[in-house]
Amino acid sequence: MELADLTLAEASEAIRERRHSPVELVEAVLDRVERVEPRLHAYAAVTADRARRAAGEAEREVAAGRYRGPLHGVPMGLKDLIDVGGMATTAGSKARAGHRAGSDSAVAGRLSAAGAVLIGKTHTHEFAYGLTTPQTHNAWDQERVAGGSSGGSAVAVAAGTATFALGTDTGGSIRVPASLNGVVGLKPTYGLVSRHGVTSLSWSLDHVGPITRTVEDASLVLAELTGYDPRDPASVPAPGGDHRPPSGTDLSGLRVGVPGNYYFERVDPEVEAAVRGAIARLAELGADLVEVEIPMAEYVRAVQWGLMVPEATAYHERGLRSAPELYADDVRALLEAGELMSAGDYLRAQRARTLMREAWAGLLDGVDVIAAPTVPMTAVPAGQSTVTWDDGTVESVSDAYVRLSAPADITGVPALTLPVGQDSAGLPIGMQVLGRPFGEDVVLRTGHAYERSRPAARGLTATTA
Amino acid sequence: MELADLTLAEASEAIRERRHSPVELVEAVLDRVERVEPRLHAYAAVTADRARRAAGEAEREVAAGRYRGPLHGVPMGLKDLIDVGGMATTAGSKARAGHRAGSDSAVAGRLSAAGAVLIGKTHTHEFAYGLTTPQTHNAWDQERVAGGSSGGSAVAVAAGTATFALGTDTGGSIRVPASLNGVVGLKPTYGLVSRHGVTSLSWSLDHVGPITRTVEDASLVLAELTGYDPRDPASVPAPGGDHRPPSGTDLSGLRVGVPGNYYFERVDPEVEAAVRGAIARLAELGADLVEVEIPMAEYVRAVQWGLMVPEATAYHERGLRSAPELYADDVRALLEAGELMSAGDYLRAQRARTLMREAWAGLLDGVDVIAAPTVPMTAVPAGQSTVTWDDGTVESVSDAYVRLSAPADITGVPALTLPVGQDSAGLPIGMQVLGRPFGEDVVLRTGHAYERSRPAARGLTATTA
Repeated sequence: MELADLTLAEASEAIRERRHSPVELVEAVLDRVERVEPRLHAYAAVTADRARRAAGEAEREVAAGRYRGPLHGVPMGLKDLIDVGGMATTAGSKARAGHRAGSDSAVAGRLSAAGAVLIGKTHTHEFAYGLTTPQTHNAWDQERVAGGSSGGSAVAVAAGTATFALGTDTGGSIRVPASLNGVVGLKPTYGLVSRHGVTSLSWSLDHVGPITRTVEDASLVLAELTGYDPRDPASVPAPGGDHRPPSGTDLSGLRVGVPGNYYFERVDPEVEAAVRGAIARLAELGADLVEVEIPMAEYVRAVQWGLMVPEATAYHERGLRSAPELYADDVRALLEAGELMSAGDYLRAQRARTLMREAWAGLLDGVDVIAAPTVPMTAVPAGQSTVTWDDGTVESVSDAYVRLSAPADITGVPALTLPVGQDSAGLPIGMQVLGRPFGEDVVLRTGHAYERSRPAARGLTATTA
Repeated sequence: MELADLTLAEASEAIRERRHSPVELVEAVLDRVERVEPRLHAYAAVTADRARRAAGEAEREVAAGRYRGPLHGVPMGLKDLIDVGGMATTAGSKARAGHRAGSDSAVAGRLSAAGAVLIGKTHTHEFAYGLTTPQTHNAWDQERVAGGSSGGSAVAVAAGTATFALGTDTGGSIRVPASLNGVVGLKPTYGLVSRHGVTSLSWSLDHVGPITRTVEDASLVLAELTGYDPRDPASVPAPGGDHRPPSGTDLSGLRVGVPGNYYFERVDPEVEAAVRGAIARLAELGADLVEVEIPMAEYVRAVQWGLMVPEATAYHERGLRSAPELYADDVRALLEAGELMSAGDYLRAQRARTLMREAWAGLLDGVDVIAAPTVPMTAVPAGQSTVTWDDGTVESVSDAYVRLSAPADITGVPALTLPVGQDSAGLPIGMQVLGRPFGEDVVLRTGHAYERSRPAARGLTATTA
């Protein structure tokens, strides 16, 4: 296996044991960037010189015995919505021309302190307001969408151009591209990871989290991201520390909720089969499967859009007035729609969210996690705008991709996606594991047990390397 | 002194030491009700039979050695916005005809468990949406407004028809009537006291708190009200327990912020003189006075109304559609105005509040408390709708009464009002003491030291007894 394809756990072990140096690893990844970026366009900006300097410094520190931990010397990509001091945060938009971040975002600062090496800023759907990331190509089939809005981050991790990456998730923007590119994505509990210095899409729904090659890797990144930050009004003091899952795969006593409604409706049969197969695997590992009913499912779409649309419009109020032509047509249309919404519309969505959170808390009293598909279908060809389901309903691709991921954003519960197979076209399929607020460890343990019980899955890689 | 005029601390000591029984105390208060209610109209409903039964039970418990604590057998009034199981919560509105609460609100349940005896439900401005409580007359001059919206509660405490009472405060509705009736009112930190079972005016601004005769009394009631309640989405787990201030009056080392802007602008000279005199007293007790600048003062009005108006309208959406004629004209006008507000208007107010909270946190880093007038003028004659200031500006009475109390609702910081004198018409003047979030003990200690250093103040009583 090439160095650029090592998992974060493997790479950091190699660095810690000095079998490979950060410089070797970063050079391998930069070499991969040169080879595949012309086809994939995962990156908005590659910071090769900076990465080489940081790798050299990490190499000297490790050699001098100043090993900082599992991210030390490991190459990463940051979604270009996340401020890095001195660099532009383009947010994928012409409206950000000439931008330069004054200082690091909370997460960039934490990862830098942990010794991670920035390879570059990854493409995002403009201002994170979409689910395809049109600049970027799917790592498994470049004629297909990357998913979004953290499409660049997911493609980079899948294609070996970053060992891990950060994304943001407001309606599914970490999990959707992770699923479509066959990698792992974790949307943490609302308030667990600071959004300070991260461009907002919808502040009551925005989350920052890792995109990685394995569940264990996600736990390693998460451990560096958590911690109370008064600069993010939603930040909550929560137990931090080591999130690494236990090495065993025994899930005895774990109660896994299997939705009897919503999550398996209007889902591609191949996706459903793969996810149901993975759930059966969880049962083989000892978990008890419990059919659950998803509460208030008919409100998900209205609440998601009812919160997101006016908050996004409020955030872009000035830009939209002064230079609307700088926004892409799809994003401008959404922002303008937000101007038509009344305070009552917004408040109805806000109150429904409160009720939905309470109902989910009741749901999660009865089970430890919920397992479900991440997205209803695999990556569609670029340019496809709708999908027609067996029941004759026609749904926009965006609506379909956001449909199964939005509940975790609305309720704030943690949600992990991990690859559980491929469809007949060879495209990856993701399973979502949702847990209780601040129940990341249980979610990670579940995903990790699945992953370890199925080593063949590591053999599947993006076709681009 | 008559039993009905005892402070809560005095009354509970008399009960604990069996110098007076709960029955004697309750009968004295019911007798006072008979004498003064025909003039004052503090109560929407008096529950004499229920009170006599509860007093008898308390008497038997105390006699049997089962003393529950300082509220045991003490007569109270509850604002008629607060559910008591089996009784109507009229909220001062015809729209609530035929209402019957199924169970106790969180606070009614807690006070009942503490042994307090309900005398009745006190009048509120309709749905708490106003600052005068037109049903009720000021305890000191019945031609003047009671203040609102917790006017009945403040008048009852001032007139001896309740030993303590509860009010609610969204823009000042505990502190304004407490100030205008010469009693103490405490708006606790947002989230400290559960609002479960309390009719909402504006859920992001609503607070429940005590109205009492002394600061010490407020601390005794507060101790019974706090505690996390998952049924109120805003409830926070916070240290509870004993809030009773120390008996000494030494304020050495306490840093008292004195606003150089906002709080002394457009304030009646007699109010200003009394409050500045009280602040000088705090300095005599050892406090350090520090001039402070109130941040974002020019946004207070827009933020208060920008949050309250749409939230109130959302709450009343159905009632307003089905039977608008059941609302009073002033309240209906405000509710209808809320329908015209856009989501953007509301979100601008919400974002400004976040900034204001942060700015106030910075302000309160430098001082322990802030001392300021509670309201800019004493009780106006009923029917007066505007006030003209020396600078020629004309302000509605409602805007004036809410102006100095709203910042604590917006920012969520605790705010106490206590009487500090009378104007030349003999009407009481209140001083506000504001503190850090969850800094109730410091606020109470400050007010208590002032109160104890000035025993003559206890000689001033409402003229109605």
